[in-house]
Amino acid sequence: MIIVGELINGSREPIARAMAQRDAQAILKAARQQVAAGAHLLDINAGGDPEREAEHLVWLMDVVMDELDVPICIDSPNFQTMEAGLKRAGIRATMINSITAEKSRLQNFLPLLDTYGSQVIALCMGDDGISSEAQERFESGAYLVETLTSRGIQPNRIFLDPIVSPVSVDPQAAQLARETLRLIKKNLPQVKTICGLSNISFGLPQRQLLNQNFLSIMLSEGLDAAILDPTDKALMAHLAATRTLMGLDEGCRDYIAAHRSGKLT
Amino acid sequence: MIIVGELINGSREPIARAMAQRDAQAILKAARQQVAAGAHLLDINAGGDPEREAEHLVWLMDVVMDELDVPICIDSPNFQTMEAGLKRAGIRATMINSITAEKSRLQNFLPLLDTYGSQVIALCMGDDGISSEAQERFESGAYLVETLTSRGIQPNRIFLDPIVSPVSVDPQAAQLARETLRLIKKNLPQVKTICGLSNISFGLPQRQLLNQNFLSIMLSEGLDAAILDPTDKALMAHLAATRTLMGLDEGCRDYIAAHRSGKLT
Repeated sequence: MIIVGELINGSREPIARAMAQRDAQAILKAARQQVAAGAHLLDINAGGDPEREAEHLVWLMDVVMDELDVPICIDSPNFQTMEAGLKRAGIRATMINSITAEKSRLQNFLPLLDTYGSQVIALCMGDDGISSEAQERFESGAYLVETLTSRGIQPNRIFLDPIVSPVSVDPQAAQLARETLRLIKKNLPQVKTICGLSNISFGLPQRQLLNQNFLSIMLSEGLDAAILDPTDKALMAHLAATRTLMGLDEGCRDYIAAHRSGKLT
Repeated sequence: MIIVGELINGSREPIARAMAQRDAQAILKAARQQVAAGAHLLDINAGGDPEREAEHLVWLMDVVMDELDVPICIDSPNFQTMEAGLKRAGIRATMINSITAEKSRLQNFLPLLDTYGSQVIALCMGDDGISSEAQERFESGAYLVETLTSRGIQPNRIFLDPIVSPVSVDPQAAQLARETLRLIKKNLPQVKTICGLSNISFGLPQRQLLNQNFLSIMLSEGLDAAILDPTDKALMAHLAATRTLMGLDEGCRDYIAAHRSGKLT
């Protein structure tokens, strides 16, 4: 499974403070900890101030990219911010987080994908918002895949996100994400899949417990990538266990090695 | 999910000692703890001495049944032991653990089911042993269901067990159990399903972690019942979390109640 580290996010208080104070060491520490814990990419989200988002993002990217050779996942709802980030990344491997099938938005983002060649997280939602039917979510995703591949974007650059709503808001949220994932895996096997885990537990106590179980369930359905906190040791232990249960760990070697290096406790 | 408590098992050292010393209080303590922790039935296995197994089983049943009103799951490979247990249970609700599609064995057990009307755990294996193909396991299960229902046994008395081998022995063990479960749920929706959880982690470190993740995966596939240690608080917390994720906990009320009563930590 591809792990996208979620910690460098301006909506988190320590990151917001580090951005405001231009505290590069604090950002670098969060970056290094995530890479050491197993992140394959780092999500970078410069947070909520639309007027300074692009500037903050480029600063965050400078700090991380000057020191570490890890691919970046540029996380913004804003087209101009995304473009500034992609320019900064240049030929470095990147992912963008995210596009949707909302037509007016999509028209802005498509040329960026042509120009910068990044991977892309595509949310399974369109102009009617997030559907409460798995089939409709899947169809939004399929529309996005068709639109992207018809421009020559290879399917393996596309990470469809079935969308994870909080189970506290919709009791069917996890089931809907899982069913949408199943439809994608069955009907669009050439694209990759991704989701953010922690949204599932928003508003509930013992969030780690829900995140752990949701990870097991989605991973067992074949989820290719997840946006998560790789420094959450218990979550990563669950990832190792589920991977072993999925038959992906011949002779349980990785599991036993993880145990010996103290990663499972 | 129906929880069958697994702790009263003569292969466990404290239970073997209590049986040898006829220490009823130790047995009762294990029984009461499991019921308090949420067990709906108690598995009773009188362990390895064939000559005394029936005698031990009836003593264990006397101890538990005289004090508690919980259904018993009589666990023995031995026909005579099973019959002694069913006689002791009389009209009390019981389950037997287990029958297989091995023809010579099956012929012994079938009359017991006619006579005593218990529920039955039916392992998905036949005369060729435990198959490494999910389809073949399913077919053994389907043969058992056909054999039992043709005698007038209602499908909802039958708990098919897809069989859980250790993932340390076969890396595909969890996947095989899951795929067999899927075939049963799809093709025999009128029967129930069950499995023992802890066998999955036999021979590996951090067994709880594997058991927890395996429970999440199997429960998310619709497993109806599990044989487990209900006093394993972390395992039961995972059960609560997965149930909430499955959309079975309207408003997350049970999850929040479990949190408030300290069951999730």
